[in-house]
Amino acid sequence: MIIDCHGHYTTAPPAHEAWRRAQIAAKGRTDVPPPPRISDDEIRESLLAAQIAEQKARGIDLVLFSPRAAGMGHHEGDAEANAVWADLCNTLIHRVCTLFPDRFIGVCQLPQAPGVPPANCIDALERAVREYGFVACNLNPDPSGGRWTDPPLHDRYWYPLYEKMVELDVPAMVHVSSSCNPHFHTTGAHYINADTTAFMQFLTSDLFRDFPTLKFIIPHGGGAAPYHWGRYRGLALDLGRPPLEELLLRNVFFDTCVYHRAGMELLFRVVPVRNILFASEMIGAVRGIDPETGHPFDDTRRMIEAIPWLGAAEREAVYAGNALSVYGRLAAQMRRQGLQPPALPAR
Amino acid sequence: MIIDCHGHYTTAPPAHEAWRRAQIAAKGRTDVPPPPRISDDEIRESLLAAQIAEQKARGIDLVLFSPRAAGMGHHEGDAEANAVWADLCNTLIHRVCTLFPDRFIGVCQLPQAPGVPPANCIDALERAVREYGFVACNLNPDPSGGRWTDPPLHDRYWYPLYEKMVELDVPAMVHVSSSCNPHFHTTGAHYINADTTAFMQFLTSDLFRDFPTLKFIIPHGGGAAPYHWGRYRGLALDLGRPPLEELLLRNVFFDTCVYHRAGMELLFRVVPVRNILFASEMIGAVRGIDPETGHPFDDTRRMIEAIPWLGAAEREAVYAGNALSVYGRLAAQMRRQGLQPPALPAR
Repeated sequence: MIIDCHGHYTTAPPAHEAWRRAQIAAKGRTDVPPPPRISDDEIRESLLAAQIAEQKARGIDLVLFSPRAAGMGHHEGDAEANAVWADLCNTLIHRVCTLFPDRFIGVCQLPQAPGVPPANCIDALERAVREYGFVACNLNPDPSGGRWTDPPLHDRYWYPLYEKMVELDVPAMVHVSSSCNPHFHTTGAHYINADTTAFMQFLTSDLFRDFPTLKFIIPHGGGAAPYHWGRYRGLALDLGRPPLEELLLRNVFFDTCVYHRAGMELLFRVVPVRNILFASEMIGAVRGIDPETGHPFDDTRRMIEAIPWLGAAEREAVYAGNALSVYGRLAAQMRRQGLQPPALPAR
Repeated sequence: MIIDCHGHYTTAPPAHEAWRRAQIAAKGRTDVPPPPRISDDEIRESLLAAQIAEQKARGIDLVLFSPRAAGMGHHEGDAEANAVWADLCNTLIHRVCTLFPDRFIGVCQLPQAPGVPPANCIDALERAVREYGFVACNLNPDPSGGRWTDPPLHDRYWYPLYEKMVELDVPAMVHVSSSCNPHFHTTGAHYINADTTAFMQFLTSDLFRDFPTLKFIIPHGGGAAPYHWGRYRGLALDLGRPPLEELLLRNVFFDTCVYHRAGMELLFRVVPVRNILFASEMIGAVRGIDPETGHPFDDTRRMIEAIPWLGAAEREAVYAGNALSVYGRLAAQMRRQGLQPPALPAR
């Protein structure tokens, strides 16, 4: 079984994001239009020829599916507007999971807003998990959209949300939204920088001493962290921190959204296999065919299959077992959606 | 011959940076103390047992040497204070190069300041190059120190400085200074993020159409760019940009400050050899001994020597030939300092 832990609903019917634009345009006025009516057929069509067709072609069985990351736009609205928007997005994902229970399990968007303590997200998280059966959330480490004006992830500002994550046994994928800072291209710089930044915040803090069971997935192959693994091991040493294994590798996991074979091999060379979760972000940031290989850049499974020194048990762990271990509610939710989870790998 | 293109004077006599602290503390007052008197012996001592001893031990012949990057602190002072500080720093580097002409060639600090157009740096650059024989500058893409409030590198804001760089035939290393943003650890996140950010700014802009001979070195192995080379090739394709070779690889070069063997091998697997310049940043951000190898993390030469599939001609190009080609004034300056530059590699 192959579980892709990083998929966004990037092909949602256009009326969905059009409503968000109208909501933002109406800021401060009362004439926000009613949410769009999107039919089940529209949802089916938006997925059957896109994500689901690709899943079948690539042999991906199940996707942990969340609203479009760049669409979250926490910096565009205030807490109230973002709460309405997150609810609309999460409801849409829930409908996707209900229509295709064998294909998608939900991951929620949080109603974060710049300057608003993340405790405001607890109700939305609880609802997504308990009512919708979602198994994780996307947590935006920079709701200011590239201004980086809120406190870092190890600040106590975030602790009430972490407490709820631990209580519910749901991990967070650390995932920024779009950038409003002209320095940072959204998918080419802001995403990758945020991943690197989060990793270093975890490295320098005692967050996982305070929350030993809190879990984060750093997407996009961990940003720059695996490429600079020696730098991070060395900085930890210079700073008098414990080795990375002890400091954060019980709590921090990396996805496989690395879009070329040399990078993928690096990830598997330096990061312990138990910390790697299969993902492609399909259909996401990079949509073309790699002229060097003739295959889609984001067909990450093909690259993992091509690593000659990766054993079958390791591949299975990355494809499914690790996800079942990191996403504490995943196995039960799979059963609820009629799927049989594979056995957990030995840890 | 081995030329390290990325060294900072991190072991300068303490009075040097103490003066900067006094200057910043005196902000707005007139009681700035006079600059410290640092003797030639103090300079000799600060280097002989540190950088020079390590250079000899590692077989590094020559270092392109600049003021401490985190010490530039462009966000800490205004343009006037930073001009005095940059001049003091550059004068000190010039003294280093005069005392050890066979060991160091200068790279200058620029008197940038947040919100101040970089045209204000032209005189300092010209002086460093024409009077001091420096061969490059460190250009800070974020003089706001982690706030990223000035225009990106492809903005015309920067063009007057680029014109002078082209006229003088000096490249810039894109190098931020310390971070005042609690999100960004200086050497663990801000440096690497800035490298990644600059690369993407080059990828999305027509800067090198406007300046076909402008050259930048992206330090720290290019930030996240080589690890995500497939992502960048794919984004260029999606954005309708030319292939990276054509778009930026005549103008953008990467140093080898990658502190573990797997990362170093990745760099050499994905980036053309002619775009890689040897560097260690010794004595810099990571100072310890890697317990996995028993050697210093920043002993990058050892890692390059260990790449089995790298040919002798390629190694020589990375060690010296490429630097002579990227730093247009380097060969002549070496001769002026009594050194014989090796032959340029065939391009």
